[in-house]
Amino acid sequence: MEECLFCKIVKGELPSSKIYEDEDTLAFLDLFPVNKGHSLVIPKEHYETIFDVPSDILSKVSSVMKNVADAVKKGVNADGISIAQSNGKDAGQVISHIHFHIMPRFKDDGLKLWPQGKYEEGEMDKFKEDISKFL
Amino acid sequence: MEECLFCKIVKGELPSSKIYEDEDTLAFLDLFPVNKGHSLVIPKEHYETIFDVPSDILSKVSSVMKNVADAVKKGVNADGISIAQSNGKDAGQVISHIHFHIMPRFKDDGLKLWPQGKYEEGEMDKFKEDISKFL
Repeated sequence: MEECLFCKIVKGELPSSKIYEDEDTLAFLDLFPVNKGHSLVIPKEHYETIFDVPSDILSKVSSVMKNVADAVKKGVNADGISIAQSNGKDAGQVISHIHFHIMPRFKDDGLKLWPQGKYEEGEMDKFKEDISKFL
Repeated sequence: MEECLFCKIVKGELPSSKIYEDEDTLAFLDLFPVNKGHSLVIPKEHYETIFDVPSDILSKVSSVMKNVADAVKKGVNADGISIAQSNGKDAGQVISHIHFHIMPRFKDDGLKLWPQGKYEEGEMDKFKEDISKFL
């Protein structure tokens, strides 16, 4: 099996623009930034998606994500920060190692992350039931 | 001051399609779904952005986010899940109470969350320095 690119970055076998590292997590610049300064936060251990990552690791990642969001905002003097994370190739996940995108945003940068849809009358109840039975 | 809509939902003063609730967090359907089943996870206490929310609360929210992501995927039989969170109106944040979007994704749903840019030669080092000095 071809080894994961992010695991190679963790091991130092591939270069990265590292901005933060601790025992469990790593943060580095995304090579294809929506706006410059766009960073990624990952757990060092390999987990494919949010469905796979243990809650204690996710907790550590979320704490680093908060600090990185703050640093990116200050570092590039952004007006806001968008955070995004994709699970599964059909959700746009390209590298199969869970990663949170920390994206600097600027007034009038023209980025609209998703269009808004709507429910038909009464339809929300069905979806509410379909989902909440798993919670 | 006009009270926050999500605080009103937490208090039961406004209706919502609630899918999960515990002491600290609440999850309910987004009224304007990118795909049906699109849900929001929030801390019950009012914090505006990720810059304001304490790490222990963020940790609880992230754990619920993982469970809700799993439930949404199963509940609507999605092919993947996209998670997003906006900080600041210039990042597209409409309700000033931190919320994580849990969006069901489907093969060929045509949604592309953001365009990819690039850095000029040598430019990544500057951004790396600008950001990492705050970490």
